[in-house]
Amino acid sequence: MMPTITAFEASPDHGRGLARDMRVRWALEEVGQPYDVRLVSFSEMKQPAHLELHPFGQIPTYERGDLALFESGAIVLHVAQHHPGLLPDEPNARARAVNWMFAALNTVEPPIVELEQSRYMLGDYVWYGELRTVLEHRVRSRLDQLARRLGDAKWLDGAFSAGDLMMVMVLRRLEGTGICEDYPHLSAFVARGEARPAYKRAFAAQRAVAESARERGL
Amino acid sequence: MMPTITAFEASPDHGRGLARDMRVRWALEEVGQPYDVRLVSFSEMKQPAHLELHPFGQIPTYERGDLALFESGAIVLHVAQHHPGLLPDEPNARARAVNWMFAALNTVEPPIVELEQSRYMLGDYVWYGELRTVLEHRVRSRLDQLARRLGDAKWLDGAFSAGDLMMVMVLRRLEGTGICEDYPHLSAFVARGEARPAYKRAFAAQRAVAESARERGL
Repeated sequence: MMPTITAFEASPDHGRGLARDMRVRWALEEVGQPYDVRLVSFSEMKQPAHLELHPFGQIPTYERGDLALFESGAIVLHVAQHHPGLLPDEPNARARAVNWMFAALNTVEPPIVELEQSRYMLGDYVWYGELRTVLEHRVRSRLDQLARRLGDAKWLDGAFSAGDLMMVMVLRRLEGTGICEDYPHLSAFVARGEARPAYKRAFAAQRAVAESARERGL
Repeated sequence: MMPTITAFEASPDHGRGLARDMRVRWALEEVGQPYDVRLVSFSEMKQPAHLELHPFGQIPTYERGDLALFESGAIVLHVAQHHPGLLPDEPNARARAVNWMFAALNTVEPPIVELEQSRYMLGDYVWYGELRTVLEHRVRSRLDQLARRLGDAKWLDGAFSAGDLMMVMVLRRLEGTGICEDYPHLSAFVARGEARPAYKRAFAAQRAVAESARERGL
């Protein structure tokens, strides 16, 4: 039974692979699980049918048979738990890989999203520059700590796992800020993720959606 | 083998149960797992020994035998996966409960933490009031959606689970803002969590640490 995920009909990132469906696509590609995609418009995302699936009116969602999930972290974990390839078999290593998923989503991503969203939410205020300085400092504090832990290791804890996948995706949200570039080990970590064949297939798939949207003037 | 967690020697919340060790204590109490607590000072949290356990220099951590974890979400999930009482047995219901854990930590908590941290980080700027209005609006948008989904149900998806535990803890971080009180169904949900015997035991344990710290002038 093939799962169906949802993605933006016209992604705000224009196919740069920063929307959260990319995490799920990448995970599914890593484990070799084909999937269907249902595209949703911004107005559809706020309609009852979609809110039934995703109470916060966002993407992605994941449906397979009777199961429906709506958080990218939970979807990636579910995929990783049900297919080999994204979590180690050894129980302690497995728990640590899951720990890195939570670290990506609850410790590293929030200050990054805050920096990103501040531009849209608050960029017109005269004091935006002052705010941005504080928010950027906070992101750099987190990256200092993450870079210190990663060191020159290839991945966060042994072999590539769903924890690395999620951390790469979270760091990619800094694209365009120039911040990640100040951390050579973290930049190399992101580049290693992007070089994986499964990442490339997932990226191409979401890029094709964005190109189709552009051709249709969406 | 009894696990050991870390907690603040002198919690910044003075024992209101808002620090992240409370989540882990509550989960351990729900499943009836006794635990040891090692208290750490703010300076110890920045020392190499603690950073080895927790690369971001925070609490809680969780150690049991050879396993060490450092994200409260991962710790609660680990506890829930290894003891009955916090996740349904039926696989789809189990995946949905984990989905609510991620929703609490990655969708609901970040705007709440942002509102909370903005006071410490930015409260002295003349424009803080304007910022707070925007941040509070964002929290209310999330709570609108969450309250709509919860409706007058007792818990988020069937029986009480680790997803409810995490959502209750996240909503409790609004304490003192008066915001949650505008959502009767969410306030009742939080109160149901707080009324659980396991919650009360966990709360009393962290409160005792705070009182001991106060007596010692910490």
